[in-house]
Amino acid sequence: MEKPESAVAERAAEPMFKRVALIGIGLIGSSISHAARRAGLAGDIVGSAPPPEMRARAEELGLVSKAYADPVEAAKGADLVVLCTPVGAFQEIAQAIGPHLEPGSILTDVGSVKAAAIQDIAPHVPAGVHFIAGHPIAGTEQSGPDAGFAELFDGRWCILTPGEGADPSALAKLSEFWRKLGSNVEIMTPEHHDMVLAITSHVPHLIAYNIVNTASHLERVTDSEVIKFSAAGFRDFTRIAASDPIMWRDVFLNNKDAVLEMLGRFAEDLTTLQRAIRFGDGETLERLFTQARATRRGIIQAGQDTAQPDFGRRPARAKDGAQ
Amino acid sequence: MEKPESAVAERAAEPMFKRVALIGIGLIGSSISHAARRAGLAGDIVGSAPPPEMRARAEELGLVSKAYADPVEAAKGADLVVLCTPVGAFQEIAQAIGPHLEPGSILTDVGSVKAAAIQDIAPHVPAGVHFIAGHPIAGTEQSGPDAGFAELFDGRWCILTPGEGADPSALAKLSEFWRKLGSNVEIMTPEHHDMVLAITSHVPHLIAYNIVNTASHLERVTDSEVIKFSAAGFRDFTRIAASDPIMWRDVFLNNKDAVLEMLGRFAEDLTTLQRAIRFGDGETLERLFTQARATRRGIIQAGQDTAQPDFGRRPARAKDGAQ
Repeated sequence: MEKPESAVAERAAEPMFKRVALIGIGLIGSSISHAARRAGLAGDIVGSAPPPEMRARAEELGLVSKAYADPVEAAKGADLVVLCTPVGAFQEIAQAIGPHLEPGSILTDVGSVKAAAIQDIAPHVPAGVHFIAGHPIAGTEQSGPDAGFAELFDGRWCILTPGEGADPSALAKLSEFWRKLGSNVEIMTPEHHDMVLAITSHVPHLIAYNIVNTASHLERVTDSEVIKFSAAGFRDFTRIAASDPIMWRDVFLNNKDAVLEMLGRFAEDLTTLQRAIRFGDGETLERLFTQARATRRGIIQAGQDTAQPDFGRRPARAKDGAQ
Repeated sequence: MEKPESAVAERAAEPMFKRVALIGIGLIGSSISHAARRAGLAGDIVGSAPPPEMRARAEELGLVSKAYADPVEAAKGADLVVLCTPVGAFQEIAQAIGPHLEPGSILTDVGSVKAAAIQDIAPHVPAGVHFIAGHPIAGTEQSGPDAGFAELFDGRWCILTPGEGADPSALAKLSEFWRKLGSNVEIMTPEHHDMVLAITSHVPHLIAYNIVNTASHLERVTDSEVIKFSAAGFRDFTRIAASDPIMWRDVFLNNKDAVLEMLGRFAEDLTTLQRAIRFGDGETLERLFTQARATRRGIIQAGQDTAQPDFGRRPARAKDGAQ
């Protein structure tokens, strides 16, 4: 198992990227930093964020060697630039950093919508810079530089949506980067990505936000009752609805068509259930409820969730302390 | 810390109930058994279930000393009878066991709807037997005798909905039983219970079932894509939608009015969000998303969920192995 010292030194001296610039250091940016360090993928990691306290915290946590106020300063000299801000900020940032990107460098993003992101970024990318849009399908309901952890991407999928003329070696290198962060990688068109994510992510979040607000505005059920008795199902929706409001505002503004289409189908299907309830049609209810179980089994078999009941959420009194 | 042997023997000889009969030994029935044994509340625990394999398993797991096919056999001689079947079975069971209930015994249930449950049970309860309906607000998406565990009720709430003429000492005793199982206890009317649970439980489950089925019937997004990319929010809905279809069919058939009212409000609110998306109204989206966060904070402060991101759901590669 021993290696000559020179080989170790050589490996350490040649990480995949010399300088990685994280534009935005929230949940995803900070998790990329942790995971890239775990795998030794970056010689140096720098970042940028507008709020001074976020920059201070990112440096304090060692997420970046230097956090700049101006994304241009972070992007300069980087051979990998990752946009990790809400999607709504992409256009302005791309316009600012575009002229300063290194020839041969890779520019990517982690935005939850892809067609609109590409539309906002691509026009500002100079020739010789490889822009390949991406979206890691991983996250928690928390945000900010403290929220990140190295394992966030492990076993999850990262979708890349390269344009038709994308450089194959840049695509291969970015794919390898995501694999080394822990992800599986899938390639698809931006339009297909936006359709898939509308149903697996955007509409579920919208529905979760919606029911939490519906519950808060009832006259005959108090907020305190909603909270006390939330263990019956509602609390899972509130977790999803705890996600960053700005990020989600931008998602819905930028994936309008796919979200409205999926929402239409959701509403149609809900009408079927509503009618079955109104007319006491137990057979239809049972049939539709039973169908839903099959999808759940698929998700557990695919390793995208565990079968552990209730995810081990136990109150403090529980013996196993699993919390 | 030493106690005289006689005191220990006396305590062991006088549990709260001599014979507890669990009519139905699924997730809730088996958890009551575990929690009652943990607290030493029952001299003997017996049960009944129609499927022979469920009875065999319940005895094998030590959940009951004896599992009967006929609920009458289980209820005979019991000073506490707990109906733990789906709500749809209550009427037939109450009719069967009613004439055999012990004078002075307590009859209760754990059904997720209360007005309909009381309507089905109460007429069959003979004078001298104390019927007090109840509903522990706790559960997981799993079912069957293997699914139960002693900590299920710890820190959760159990709602009791006694009728106007309910015996105060029977109510006090049943409340104490639930407290010793680990729950907090709240008293309310059956109608109010059904309204509260419609929003905290029934409508969330209906929505979860619905979106899982919507996702399964898309032409342009494959089932495999829905599953692979489920970590983006969808998987949380599938967990809720993995709950027992028969139990949930019965809930919706028996709490029609409250569910339809809450569903109407949910749909109205969803229309507001839909319009905001259609017209690009980012201000409305951000405002409504921000409001939802406050409810989440309330639930964590009330101890009904933990703030741990993603509930520690990490894939197998994660270092901490929390799974």
